[in-house]
Amino acid sequence: MDFAFSEKTQNYIQRLEAFMHNFVLPAEGVYASQLQHTSDWRKWKQPPVMEELKAKARAAGLWNLFLAGSQHGAGLTNLEYAPLAEITGRSPIAPEVFNCNAPDTGNMEVLVKYGSEAQKERWLKPLLAGEIRSAFCMTEPEVASSDATNIQATALLEGNEVVLTGRKWWSSGIGHPHCRVVIFMGVTLPSAEKHQRHSMVLVPVDTPGVRIERMVSAFGMYDEPFGHGEVTFSNVRVPADHIIAGPGRGFEIAQGRLGPGRIHHCMRTLGAGERALELLCQRALNRVAFGKPLAELGGNRDIIANARIAIEQARLLTLKAAWMMDTVGAKGAMSEISQIKVVAPSVAQTILDQAIQIYGGAGVSPDFPLAEMFGCIRSLRLADGPDEVHRALIAKLEIKKHKQVATLEHA
Amino acid sequence: MDFAFSEKTQNYIQRLEAFMHNFVLPAEGVYASQLQHTSDWRKWKQPPVMEELKAKARAAGLWNLFLAGSQHGAGLTNLEYAPLAEITGRSPIAPEVFNCNAPDTGNMEVLVKYGSEAQKERWLKPLLAGEIRSAFCMTEPEVASSDATNIQATALLEGNEVVLTGRKWWSSGIGHPHCRVVIFMGVTLPSAEKHQRHSMVLVPVDTPGVRIERMVSAFGMYDEPFGHGEVTFSNVRVPADHIIAGPGRGFEIAQGRLGPGRIHHCMRTLGAGERALELLCQRALNRVAFGKPLAELGGNRDIIANARIAIEQARLLTLKAAWMMDTVGAKGAMSEISQIKVVAPSVAQTILDQAIQIYGGAGVSPDFPLAEMFGCIRSLRLADGPDEVHRALIAKLEIKKHKQVATLEHA
Amino acid sequence: MDFAFSEKTQNYIQRLEAFMHNFVLPAEGVYASQLQHTSDWRKWKQPPVMEELKAKARAAGLWNLFLAGSQHGAGLTNLEYAPLAEITGRSPIAPEVFNCNAPDTGNMEVLVKYGSEAQKERWLKPLLAGEIRSAFCMTEPEVASSDATNIQATALLEGNEVVLTGRKWWSSGIGHPHCRVVIFMGVTLPSAEKHQRHSMVLVPVDTPGVRIERMVSAFGMYDEPFGHGEVTFSNVRVPADHIIAGPGRGFEIAQGRLGPGRIHHCMRTLGAGERALELLCQRALNRVAFGKPLAELGGNRDIIANARIAIEQARLLTLKAAWMMDTVGAKGAMSEISQIKVVAPSVAQTILDQAIQIYGGAGVSPDFPLAEMFGCIRSLRLADGPDEVHRALIAKLEIKKHKQVATLEHA
Amino acid sequence: MDFAFSEKTQNYIQRLEAFMHNFVLPAEGVYASQLQHTSDWRKWKQPPVMEELKAKARAAGLWNLFLAGSQHGAGLTNLEYAPLAEITGRSPIAPEVFNCNAPDTGNMEVLVKYGSEAQKERWLKPLLAGEIRSAFCMTEPEVASSDATNIQATALLEGNEVVLTGRKWWSSGIGHPHCRVVIFMGVTLPSAEKHQRHSMVLVPVDTPGVRIERMVSAFGMYDEPFGHGEVTFSNVRVPADHIIAGPGRGFEIAQGRLGPGRIHHCMRTLGAGERALELLCQRALNRVAFGKPLAELGGNRDIIANARIAIEQARLLTLKAAWMMDTVGAKGAMSEISQIKVVAPSVAQTILDQAIQIYGGAGVSPDFPLAEMFGCIRSLRLADGPDEVHRALIAKLEIKKHKQVATLEHA
Repeated sequence: MDFAFSEKTQNYIQRLEAFMHNFVLPAEGVYASQLQHTSDWRKWKQPPVMEELKAKARAAGLWNLFLAGSQHGAGLTNLEYAPLAEITGRSPIAPEVFNCNAPDTGNMEVLVKYGSEAQKERWLKPLLAGEIRSAFCMTEPEVASSDATNIQATALLEGNEVVLTGRKWWSSGIGHPHCRVVIFMGVTLPSAEKHQRHSMVLVPVDTPGVRIERMVSAFGMYDEPFGHGEVTFSNVRVPADHIIAGPGRGFEIAQGRLGPGRIHHCMRTLGAGERALELLCQRALNRVAFGKPLAELGGNRDIIANARIAIEQARLLTLKAAWMMDTVGAKGAMSEISQIKVVAPSVAQTILDQAIQIYGGAGVSPDFPLAEMFGCIRSLRLADGPDEVHRALIAKLEIKKHKQVATLEHA
Repeated sequence: MDFAFSEKTQNYIQRLEAFMHNFVLPAEGVYASQLQHTSDWRKWKQPPVMEELKAKARAAGLWNLFLAGSQHGAGLTNLEYAPLAEITGRSPIAPEVFNCNAPDTGNMEVLVKYGSEAQKERWLKPLLAGEIRSAFCMTEPEVASSDATNIQATALLEGNEVVLTGRKWWSSGIGHPHCRVVIFMGVTLPSAEKHQRHSMVLVPVDTPGVRIERMVSAFGMYDEPFGHGEVTFSNVRVPADHIIAGPGRGFEIAQGRLGPGRIHHCMRTLGAGERALELLCQRALNRVAFGKPLAELGGNRDIIANARIAIEQARLLTLKAAWMMDTVGAKGAMSEISQIKVVAPSVAQTILDQAIQIYGGAGVSPDFPLAEMFGCIRSLRLADGPDEVHRALIAKLEIKKHKQVATLEHA
Repeated sequence: MDFAFSEKTQNYIQRLEAFMHNFVLPAEGVYASQLQHTSDWRKWKQPPVMEELKAKARAAGLWNLFLAGSQHGAGLTNLEYAPLAEITGRSPIAPEVFNCNAPDTGNMEVLVKYGSEAQKERWLKPLLAGEIRSAFCMTEPEVASSDATNIQATALLEGNEVVLTGRKWWSSGIGHPHCRVVIFMGVTLPSAEKHQRHSMVLVPVDTPGVRIERMVSAFGMYDEPFGHGEVTFSNVRVPADHIIAGPGRGFEIAQGRLGPGRIHHCMRTLGAGERALELLCQRALNRVAFGKPLAELGGNRDIIANARIAIEQARLLTLKAAWMMDTVGAKGAMSEISQIKVVAPSVAQTILDQAIQIYGGAGVSPDFPLAEMFGCIRSLRLADGPDEVHRALIAKLEIKKHKQVATLEHA
Repeated sequence: MDFAFSEKTQNYIQRLEAFMHNFVLPAEGVYASQLQHTSDWRKWKQPPVMEELKAKARAAGLWNLFLAGSQHGAGLTNLEYAPLAEITGRSPIAPEVFNCNAPDTGNMEVLVKYGSEAQKERWLKPLLAGEIRSAFCMTEPEVASSDATNIQATALLEGNEVVLTGRKWWSSGIGHPHCRVVIFMGVTLPSAEKHQRHSMVLVPVDTPGVRIERMVSAFGMYDEPFGHGEVTFSNVRVPADHIIAGPGRGFEIAQGRLGPGRIHHCMRTLGAGERALELLCQRALNRVAFGKPLAELGGNRDIIANARIAIEQARLLTLKAAWMMDTVGAKGAMSEISQIKVVAPSVAQTILDQAIQIYGGAGVSPDFPLAEMFGCIRSLRLADGPDEVHRALIAKLEIKKHKQVATLEHA
């Protein structure tokens, strides 16, 4: 057991932190000023500063760091990438700079693992190059999508084509002007076993019948120029070879897609938590009430101490989950991944709430990133499986240990 | 001791609930569709449906219910008004319908209690009639305004004039197209005892030197057409008789203003909490995952039970605080008012967070009022004194009891 | 609505507080010194000071205050008795002084409501006079007794006799040297509907076949001279007229018995919470660390404020439940009674835990009553239905409202 | 970074678990039956089974495992020992079996690090051999000992002697029939800087003037045959060479003593937490209410999931603190050690409380180890520095980072 990062990781950490400090954080204001603040996604444009930052990051070798164990990326393990993901979580604009932003990361992983050569050539290549963006169309407004077997959209085979019908929402990233392709999940084999009914299909975003109905705001925010789309698919036809890995494998791919993605999310979330704690401490030192800095008043130091404890613990657990993903695989790390998915957003949400409280009115205002980060992190407790589903899985695995013991003892 | 509402109150409750059911709730969608969604307050207009509702409410005798013990309003006590405030808290648009919305309520109370006849004639009358709106300019971005003695803006006497200088924010309601007057708080007597330095001054909103710099969003929302303004006052001159109750009484008025206002806020907040619990239960009954309604899954029933317990308790405490305000006055009710200010928003925030969780993606979307209500209620934990200041007061009063005992025992 | 206690209640409060101050609290030490500290209940004796106090209380008219609406007691309503129960909760020895201690109170209520004249003459009379004590034998070690239908002991009719068989535990009070009778719950009609199978039977404690196996400690404490017995009933035969209210009514009586009892428990619990808060404040004022009284350190004042808020709320809810019991009966007050049963012990447990923390090592020691009170209050979260069962009931009733609405709307 | 235990550690884990399974756990009942349950420590005897187990453990090479980096013990690092300490935490009787129980462990560490050769020969040797036991006399009833500079007892030099005067309590282990020596902390140099006033003195327990006044129970339990003594020192005279490391170094030694000790405590505490979770799961599977195993009811699975998450996190943080102790020393690990001291007992207390709740009345009874463990763990939140002191330290170190940044930026 060794808690020190490898030299390789430490080297990446240094380079990434320097890049963040020199280029990304100073560009946050520029990026904000180049945004089109409107709910009409047709008017959204990619802020030019982002393309400049992407070029710089690629030149600096800080590119596609996320692609664990693949020749396409930096060749890092999940454990090596985890602390880097945390660093990018400190700024909402950072992940895209390094071509490490959801949902493209998950989509690229799917293509690396399950894509045909043709699919890779057409979609993976430009995604890896940061030339295009993508979206993931799984969640549906009509059903509790936390139970993926509920998904009702259809992807039916007709001759050489697959015909897509349904309504999706929270199709994140579909509003981006560079978005060219979505991965659509729908039922292909309605009478198969319920985990083998669905397929994943690659759909060019300009295919006839694909219609963005609106962008859905989360806590009032549109996250332009990405956006979270509500999208209808009406008799959308694409060639059957656009199905990924063959009909009926959608559920399997969805599961496989989520492991590393959840680790990335959690580490970025902890980066956000760290930034919130920093901001909190700074305000506590610099703001005076009743004759004292806030840091000297009431239970504020207890809040700081508890935040530090919570972050340290959640980070170690996330790193362990990454290590298990690398050593025993997604299945062996199932409980740990669910554990971090419950705990990391919860820790960050609490600290953000407390930081907002210390900032007073400024905390809910746009003058500090706290309210925006709160909205994102709060939403994350729903994305990739709500807390409840993860807790249920953890408990099931925990209880199973005792059932086995009981069985053994009665044998 | 009697927990039943008086017949008078029950009569008002029935009429108000019927009005809410018949007119206000059905108008929520119309109101939203008539709003101008933009951060530019100059384009904000009063949605016509609001003026229709106001006329109806006034005709129905459901008007100015809040003005406790005054001939200007319905003549209700705080205890009688409290359950009515809760009912209006169920819809974000309701309070204005009944001319019972902050900050106008507090401003009217100040004018009733401290205003000169001329001030009443000029400002109270049209406010009571719902013809104009007003704002309250106290909080400042530069200092921790939770400690009101920190306030730095100045209201200096020069001959027959008072000259106002300073920067204010969270001047709620100043964006409203009907807003005509603000109450400004500033230092008049810098060398006086620190609670006798400030004055409250009535300032027509179009006085030269008053400049709205921007509207500040809270959790990304502008609350149009009210808005929360950041406002600069540069050499603003008004006649000295615009000072309310005389120079140096600002702190006293600020304190007096807050008692009933906090009770109103808390009761409305509990109305929001009740609505969140209703929405939560409805979703829990109607949404199915893993083969069961959500109400049958995991700890959801514990959440419902705990929410019910929390609301019941917070409501009783708020009603008791109202009763104490009526029977022993603001000073005697000081601890209880701080207690409800801590507990009511906290209860509602928790239930809203849990309701959002049950709704999944829909919970953070604009399709349900949960995310908007969450933003408002979260902000309320900062307005009218942050939780921390209220807790400090409660503890001080609690500890004082034991100091007195100690003193008595040693006497 | 009126939060003031009636004159009658205020008069009782004054007399009871004076009695507590003059006689009960000063006798706590004497009582402790007269106890036999041993796990062998056969050696337990009634401390003489208790009989002296009982005589004084009876003479002072502070006797059997609990018996709501009955000619046998003080003729108080539940609402009138509630604040008195709270006062007795401040001292562990107080309830017995006033003949208001569980389980005798519940047993007397059962006899008043369901007992035959012969049963009343034989058992109610000496219980009311404080001459004998009683126990209640319901909970069983083998089954989850939180679900009372699980109860397996039998009370079978054989001719003119009823024959009792089974193992009971947590038979509180059975160790008392004055205990003469128990109420036993067992299955009489195994094939009846599951809520109509059980009977309650009066059993003289010296009936052959009744055997106390041991006293069960709770958190290491035996609560001598009451004790919590584990008792076996082996072929215990009593005349069939010892059944209360007839065969098969056990469940009904158990339910009816619990309403007022839970209110009493909750009010006493809040009395314990108040005392813990007092002790906490005293220590916080008088103990110095790092150069300051503890009251000036860290989050201690937040703890005090939160404790005050929690007690106020729980007390109001308990009083309301008592008022509902008086006005709409146990059935109408079902949710409220479950609510207070969840919240009052939880509030008191939290404050006791925090008071212990402020006292440091002294807090867990026998030098202050905190550890003992903690043990009692913690156990109370299991007695009379564990929190979980009460939450489930509250949620069921809450959800029912929305089912009815749904039905109405579809009609 | 590597989360796998070394082969050496894994080997010890296997051997220790086998020993626990084969010898320690089966002996728990025997041990209990051989105990003298009385508050009179003069009657306490060492249960013979303990000496048998100690001999077996020593023979098996599972002896003195705790002594990090020392030739006297197994030569394990803190990180290597930590998982072993956790295993011993599963049974209250286990630590002594392996000669790894507090306060002897801490006392041995002090002697190894600071003791003279003569002190080592006389006391360390028999302690290492498990032939004698020892106690640590630091905490005082009269002052808040959480602030060690408050300590008032004196250890004054008079010629060749040091004279000890004062009252100590929570002198744990002093009741043990094998206890032969205590380490006493008192003021030697009253006018020195406040961290250089105290000395640590080795005192044979039979020195004239040392008087055990009573054993103090914690939550009603005496922890026989160890006990927590209240001890007076009246003109106790020992040679000056009984001072450890020279006069005035008491505070330094106290600090140094606590680092590894806190890690041991935390790991054992997590062992207790694991056992509580196991017991909880077993009961949840095997106990039926309302027609279902408890594991299927209400929020019980959420409780299980949250417990698992909490233990995993706290364990990783404790292991990291051990690793830091090994790599950067006690000073560099200061924040982490305080973090685990706050979090580990809190996690275990919560799980124990929840396990008790699942067990119902059986949970507070002596039939399961839950109530006893609860008492120990709750007390641990006060021992070795209460939570509050550790939180204050963590916050201080956290805030310091930002002060340094502020200074750097202004440079």
